Amino acid sequence: MPQTYSDERLTSYCFEELELGMQAEYRRPVTEVDVAQFADVSGDINPLHLDPDFAARTMFGEKIVHGMYGAGMISAVIGTRLPGPGCVYLGQSLRFVAPVHIGDEVVASVLLVELFPEKHRARLETQCHVGEILVITGEALVLVPTGAELETISATG
Amino acid sequence: MPQTYSDERLTSYCFEELELGMQAEYRRPVTEVDVAQFADVSGDINPLHLDPDFAARTMFGEKIVHGMYGAGMISAVIGTRLPGPGCVYLGQSLRFVAPVHIGDEVVASVLLVELFPEKHRARLETQCHVGEILVITGEALVLVPTGAELETISATG
Repeated sequence: MPQTYSDERLTSYCFEELELGMQAEYRRPVTEVDVAQFADVSGDINPLHLDPDFAARTMFGEKIVHGMYGAGMISAVIGTRLPGPGCVYLGQSLRFVAPVHIGDEVVASVLLVELFPEKHRARLETQCHVGEILVITGEALVLVPTGAELETISATG
Repeated sequence: MPQTYSDERLTSYCFEELELGMQAEYRRPVTEVDVAQFADVSGDINPLHLDPDFAARTMFGEKIVHGMYGAGMISAVIGTRLPGPGCVYLGQSLRFVAPVHIGDEVVASVLLVELFPEKHRARLETQCHVGEILVITGEALVLVPTGAELETISATG
């Protein structure tokens, strides 16, 4: 039975509950406002993402979404759904293989592919798609709490 | 001579200008507002970053900044300073080796370590520090425009 933190948008799994093949996703359309907000919070004011005239002169022809925006969505899946709150993000690799355009719906997905019982770690394949197009691929490594640890972390009151 | 896009906060280098050992950085203190904004824009509402009671029960003892926040700052260095606007982000690896606490000043830095002249690519070591503490380490791969390409991209009017 998954431990559920009090916020219903969140699901936490302890290490003992994890099985190869488990998957989760998070999808959202990325708006112009999202991109401006990401630029503001990260400091990445590259005009490729903000200035239509600059972007028009690049190989992309129009403004594109920050690659690291999709990475943030992968972090969202890991931090809120699988394994969810309580896990510790140890590493992430990212290959940005196709651009994301403003207005695209991005689907960030994770698939559990390896478990390391001695260290309570899990490896996940991580991808972002826009429709059928793979836009980011890579993998994540996370440290996952045991059931006893997660019970302590999730305790309310 | 570096091509400079009209915005003075930005510096672009073409591939021919790059030399091993070049480096750049971006520093900012990360506030509670930044973390809330990052959670909002990425969808990563993991309570470890937002809920002091939850965070107090974890191994960290208090709220910490999203790991991917630092990754956004690395993207900022690459997208605005070295190589800067005009480059294409191909990949990034990240190891999250220590937590960032709210209020910490994060310094994201990149160091040019390898050039691939046949493909106009560059490999950069990427790190984030808080004071002397290394918090994120990894590397980036970017595609860098030639001087002629950058001139076209940077042309104003």
